Amino acid sequence: MTPVQVVEAFVAAWNRMDLEAILAFLHEDIVYHNMPVAPLHGKAAVNAYLRSRWIFDSIDWEMPNIAVTGNTVLTERVDRFTIDGRPVNLPVMGTFEIRDGVISAWRDYFDMAGYRAQLPVR
Amino acid sequence: MTPVQVVEAFVAAWNRMDLEAILAFLHEDIVYHNMPVAPLHGKAAVNAYLRSRWIFDSIDWEMPNIAVTGNTVLTERVDRFTIDGRPVNLPVMGTFEIRDGVISAWRDYFDMAGYRAQLPVR
Repeated sequence: MTPVQVVEAFVAAWNRMDLEAILAFLHEDIVYHNMPVAPLHGKAAVNAYLRSRWIFDSIDWEMPNIAVTGNTVLTERVDRFTIDGRPVNLPVMGTFEIRDGVISAWRDYFDMAGYRAQLPVR
Repeated sequence: MTPVQVVEAFVAAWNRMDLEAILAFLHEDIVYHNMPVAPLHGKAAVNAYLRSRWIFDSIDWEMPNIAVTGNTVLTERVDRFTIDGRPVNLPVMGTFEIRDGVISAWRDYFDMAGYRAQLPVR
């Protein structure tokens, strides 16, 4: 798979809500950085994080733009979720670095306050 | 100029703090959207906005990643400014759509709270 194909398949796994497939695309040494907060280091940490935050009724990410330079893939997306029956739409750009056919770095850039304002109170 | 060259030259104009050169790269019908806030429509609106916010002592944008798909350029940047003698570092990704050799759309994705927290109180 090309780097672009890896990212497209990764997004498809999100849209199937297939957490095992999502994790299979991550390098053991991945650095996953939602830029407004601290980065997570390693697949085990990302696994624990995603399982603890897996509050989605549905997932439908759109990816209007994807481009590649070397092994680095840049994306522009709208990450749409449904949480407690409410729509949550996250405009986001993300960079994915591909190594050994999997994702070794993932950096997502978005406005945290705009995201949190949409979340149901729990 | 290729779309990538347009964006590279645009960033170079920022780093020269050359506001006239910056404006020369904008399409009359540009939509400039800092995603956390409302978009600006048209070159005149962007001109007024940039002049009203031109509070920079220095500008040094780094662009570790740039990639193109068709006429759309995706960038990962660190927009470094100095404002009132204080460093402000903005991790950001931006999409640029090129039409007629200039920028017809510019969308920047970043965390507004993280940016504002660095600004001097005025």
